[in-house]
Amino acid sequence: MNGIDWTEIEKVAEQWTREAGDIVKESLSENIKVEWKSNPDDLVTEMDRYVERFFLEKIQAKYPNHSFLGEEGSGEEVASTKGTVWIIDPIDGTTNFVHQQFNFAISVAVYHNGIGMVGMIYNVIGNEFFSAVRNHGAYLNGEALSPLEPVSLEKAIIGLNAGWLVTDGVPGRERLANIVNTVRGVRSYGSAAIEIAYVAAGRLDGYISMGLSPWDFAAGLVLLHEVGGTYSTYPGEELNILQSSSVFVANPTIHQDILKFRE
Amino acid sequence: MNGIDWTEIEKVAEQWTREAGDIVKESLSENIKVEWKSNPDDLVTEMDRYVERFFLEKIQAKYPNHSFLGEEGSGEEVASTKGTVWIIDPIDGTTNFVHQQFNFAISVAVYHNGIGMVGMIYNVIGNEFFSAVRNHGAYLNGEALSPLEPVSLEKAIIGLNAGWLVTDGVPGRERLANIVNTVRGVRSYGSAAIEIAYVAAGRLDGYISMGLSPWDFAAGLVLLHEVGGTYSTYPGEELNILQSSSVFVANPTIHQDILKFRE
Repeated sequence: MNGIDWTEIEKVAEQWTREAGDIVKESLSENIKVEWKSNPDDLVTEMDRYVERFFLEKIQAKYPNHSFLGEEGSGEEVASTKGTVWIIDPIDGTTNFVHQQFNFAISVAVYHNGIGMVGMIYNVIGNEFFSAVRNHGAYLNGEALSPLEPVSLEKAIIGLNAGWLVTDGVPGRERLANIVNTVRGVRSYGSAAIEIAYVAAGRLDGYISMGLSPWDFAAGLVLLHEVGGTYSTYPGEELNILQSSSVFVANPTIHQDILKFRE
Repeated sequence: MNGIDWTEIEKVAEQWTREAGDIVKESLSENIKVEWKSNPDDLVTEMDRYVERFFLEKIQAKYPNHSFLGEEGSGEEVASTKGTVWIIDPIDGTTNFVHQQFNFAISVAVYHNGIGMVGMIYNVIGNEFFSAVRNHGAYLNGEALSPLEPVSLEKAIIGLNAGWLVTDGVPGRERLANIVNTVRGVRSYGSAAIEIAYVAAGRLDGYISMGLSPWDFAAGLVLLHEVGGTYSTYPGEELNILQSSSVFVANPTIHQDILKFRE
């Protein structure tokens, strides 16, 4: 597309992402953890910023005409999907990072004129590297992910945050309860990026979040596209890659069924 | 205790458990999976029985005076905790096994006169081997697990099955909702054995199940004992290692706080 070699960009992005993973892993080593023990929330803030700057500097040096959209706002403001935009979450699943020291991920996406071209989600401690280049398939640790196979609602496993089921004022809470009562099981891992990657890998058949930012889901959508996964807001509208919104990704055979629960 | 070398038994049990893990892993290989594709539930039933028989035969040959308590009921009925009893779940997290092909575990415990002496939980695909010998510490892949550190309820992460929050007739459902609304986060992994192991490893600060069988929690209690974890039924009664019941395991600093939600 437009003469850009996306596979080459994917290689570069993977190398940076693995380097960033090493930095994050190092921050969890015993020596450094002690320093942050009194306030681990400072550690995640620090690492979030550090890793975002790491990517920003690499991108500006190698691809000076690309834009950057990230959680910490290091880049210039991105108001348009025009051109090539990197959308990065340095640490997705910050509570897991601080509290569990596992099940967090680095999420890196490259969009071109609004279309997801490259996506990768690196579960650093679990050592699972999900990656995709548009129309070149999705991979987990180098092994191709299969196209999603049909599943019935009654056999489906859905990822969501259980807290929404008991939080007053959550829109669509009753519908969520009906969904949970219909599917086979519910899982919660605490990282949107990992949970969307799991949908792409067929480990989950759907994932619902009441509120995500672009960097939480941008890379996941690229993976999903390669395995035939569908995505929308929770009410079924089109996702806007520059806006925060609810997110509902799923195996295509149950996406419509679950949207019907809104009626 | 009674001249029995529990460390030696632990070594033997670990070897068998890893062998069993290889058998289970092999059953998920592409060749074999195809055979079961039309009805994957048959595969888990078959593997459950096969692995249980595998352990039963090994135990009967090497420790003919030990008893055996397992899900499939291959062993003689165990009505007393007297003597040495192996309590085994060949595949804990059967839905995960069938549907996700990850996050299931082999759970093996050895109790002596009702006291948990050896416990191991093997997350086969995640390649995490949790093990403990009473008063000799708990380990994850050979690395010692630290004693659990104090945590406040507001910072705690709790494991539970989100389905209970919306299922009519679940006893204590309102209390569960109050707990979920108070703690920092909720996770659901779909394997009681793994979730109890996570409490022992400090990844979760508590785990609540409305109904487990002895083989689901026997090994986990041995791990918990070594790191100072506490355990009871959900209402706070003592667990009986021969009976199914609700189970509530936790970091000791929040165990009482969470029990108070019942009042």
